[in-house]
Amino acid sequence: MLPLVERIVQGDARAAARLLRNVDDRVGTWFEALADLFPHTGRAHVVGITGNPGAGKSTLTDRLITHYRASGGKVGVVAVDPTSPFTGGAILGDRIRMQRHALDDGVFIRSLATRGQLGGVSRSTMDSVHVLDAWGASVVLVETVGVGQDELDVARLAHTTVVVVPPGLGDEIQAIKAGILEIADVFCVNKADRDGAEATVRDLETMLAMNHEMFHAQVRAGRHHGARAIDLASVAESLGEFEWLAPIVKTVAMNGSGVAELAAAIEKHRVFLSGTNVGVERMRARARDELWTTVRAILMERATDRIGDRIDAASVEVLERKRDPYTIARELVDELVETK
Amino acid sequence: MLPLVERIVQGDARAAARLLRNVDDRVGTWFEALADLFPHTGRAHVVGITGNPGAGKSTLTDRLITHYRASGGKVGVVAVDPTSPFTGGAILGDRIRMQRHALDDGVFIRSLATRGQLGGVSRSTMDSVHVLDAWGASVVLVETVGVGQDELDVARLAHTTVVVVPPGLGDEIQAIKAGILEIADVFCVNKADRDGAEATVRDLETMLAMNHEMFHAQVRAGRHHGARAIDLASVAESLGEFEWLAPIVKTVAMNGSGVAELAAAIEKHRVFLSGTNVGVERMRARARDELWTTVRAILMERATDRIGDRIDAASVEVLERKRDPYTIARELVDELVETK
Repeated sequence: MLPLVERIVQGDARAAARLLRNVDDRVGTWFEALADLFPHTGRAHVVGITGNPGAGKSTLTDRLITHYRASGGKVGVVAVDPTSPFTGGAILGDRIRMQRHALDDGVFIRSLATRGQLGGVSRSTMDSVHVLDAWGASVVLVETVGVGQDELDVARLAHTTVVVVPPGLGDEIQAIKAGILEIADVFCVNKADRDGAEATVRDLETMLAMNHEMFHAQVRAGRHHGARAIDLASVAESLGEFEWLAPIVKTVAMNGSGVAELAAAIEKHRVFLSGTNVGVERMRARARDELWTTVRAILMERATDRIGDRIDAASVEVLERKRDPYTIARELVDELVETK
Repeated sequence: MLPLVERIVQGDARAAARLLRNVDDRVGTWFEALADLFPHTGRAHVVGITGNPGAGKSTLTDRLITHYRASGGKVGVVAVDPTSPFTGGAILGDRIRMQRHALDDGVFIRSLATRGQLGGVSRSTMDSVHVLDAWGASVVLVETVGVGQDELDVARLAHTTVVVVPPGLGDEIQAIKAGILEIADVFCVNKADRDGAEATVRDLETMLAMNHEMFHAQVRAGRHHGARAIDLASVAESLGEFEWLAPIVKTVAMNGSGVAELAAAIEKHRVFLSGTNVGVERMRARARDELWTTVRAILMERATDRIGDRIDAASVEVLERKRDPYTIARELVDELVETK
C-alpha cells in the first residue's frame, strides 16, 4: 500500500485532503493511490441530498451531520451544489452555521466546483466519496442541485437519494415529475411549518401512487392502461418487500424537527439495499455506473490528448462550412478506435 | 444530395420531422443525411432561452415566436426543458397557448427528452438545430433549464444566450453567479410588473459591473485585486467594441411588454458576433464545441459497443471489491485506444 493511502485508511484527514488535491491537480501517484485505496472502501453509506435551490438542502445537510455525529460515526460531505454554503456560494448566516463542523475532526467537508468538462463532476464526486469512505466515514452526504443531467448522474452515485422539496410549489412538482421521481428513494418536504406543506405531501403521495399503479397495471396487463390515483397504503402493501416505495418525511431543518425521522427513513433504505434482491440489483447497477464514469473520463482524457489539436484545426473548416462535423468526427474516432 | 435532405432544404417540414425521427431511432441513412445537410446550415440565428423553472421561459418563448413570425421568417424551437409546455410537462393554460403555433407551418417545434446518456442531450439539440436551420428557420429558439452542467453545454450551442430571471430572488442571484453569468449574453428580468423587479435589475447591474471591473483590473495589474461595484455606464464605455456587456431587458411575457426590446438586444448581439474579432473568436469556439460533442457521442457509442458487455461483467468484481474500477477502466481504455 502507498504510504499516503495507509495514512488515509488509518483515519488521517490531512492525508485524505492531500490525495484529493493531488487528484484535482493530477500530480504524483494520484491514479495509483485511488486504485490502491479502493479495496478499503464500501463501508460508508452514501446519501445524496438533492433538490432545487431554496429547498433548504444545506440546512438539512447541516442537521444530518449533527445527527450522525451524535451517534459517534465520522461524517463525510461532498458538496456539488453551486448555491450551497459548503461550496462557497453562501449567504452569511449559512456560512456561519457551517463553521462549527469545520472545527470537528470527525467531519470532512469536500467542496467541488460544478463547472468543467462534461461528466467531470460525476467523476470528481465518485473519487471524493471513495477517499472519504476509506478515511472512515460511516456516512457520506452528497449535496447536489436537483436539475440537470449531470446532477442526476451524480445522484445515481448515491446509495440513497433524498429529494428535498419546499412546500406549496405546483411548478416544482411538475419539474420533479420529469426526472427526479425515478431517483428519489426518500422525499423530504422541508419547511413543513409553512403554508402548503400538507398539500405538497398530498401531491407527492398522489404522484407516487399513480406511478406505482402504472407500474403494476403494466405488469398485470402487459401494457400501460393509463394512470389513476389510488390509495397509497394499499400500494405499499401490494408492493411488499419486492419494491421500494419512497417514503415522504416532513422536516423543519431550521429547528431540527423531523431530522431523526429522515435519518430513520434513510437507514430503512440502507437495510432494503443490502437485504433484498431488488436492492442488490441496484447496487450492481450503481457499480456499473461507477465503472462507466471512470472509463468515460479516461477515454475523454486520452481523446483530448490524441486528437484535441486536430479538432481545434478542423473547427475552422466546420465554421466555414467547408466540411461537416459528422464526417470529421467519424474519421477521427475511426483513427482512435478501430472498428470491428 | 439525399432525396430526404433535398426536401428539407426546400422547406418541407414533414421531411424534417422524418429525419429527426430517423436520428432518434438510428434508422436508415440518418448519419449520412446529417452530414449531407450540414453545408446548407449556418443561416439561422440560434438563441438559447435559459433560467430556473418558474422564470417564465415558455411564455417568453411563445411571445418571441409571435414576434419573429410577424417579420415573416420561419421559426424553429427546440425545447429541452422538462418543465416546458413545449416538451409536454405543461400546465393546461400554457399548453393551450402553445397550440396556435402548432397550426402555423412557419413554426417547427421539436421537443427533446432530457434524460438519457450523458451528453446525449447536447448532441440531440445540436442535430435538431442543424435540421431546423437547413429547413429554413431564420431563428431557432432553444429552451433549457438553467441549472446543471449538461444544460450549460446546451446553452453553449446557442449563438446568443438569454438568461431569464424572475424578480426578487436573492437566492437565484446566488445561483446565477455560480455559472450562468459566464454564459449570459442578454439578461431578461421577466414578470417585471411584480415587486422586486427594479431591485433584481440593480442586483444584476452590480454583479455585472463587479465582474467587468475584475476583468479590467486583472488586465491592468496583471493580477486580481478584488472586486468593488462601479458605475456600469463607465464600464460599458471602457469596453468599447472589444467586449460584449450583457444588457438587462425587462419584460412582462404575459402581456408581451418588452418583447420587442428583447428581440432588439438579441439582434444587437448577432451583429456583434459577426462584426468583431471577439465575436468571430466565439463562433470558432462554438464550432469546436459542436465538433467535440459529435466526437464524444460517436466515441461513447463505439465504446459501449466494444466494451459494454465487459463493463457489465466487471462491475460485479467492483461491487465485491475484488478489483478496483480505476485499474479495470484503464485496461479497457488501453485496449480501445492505444497509448502513444
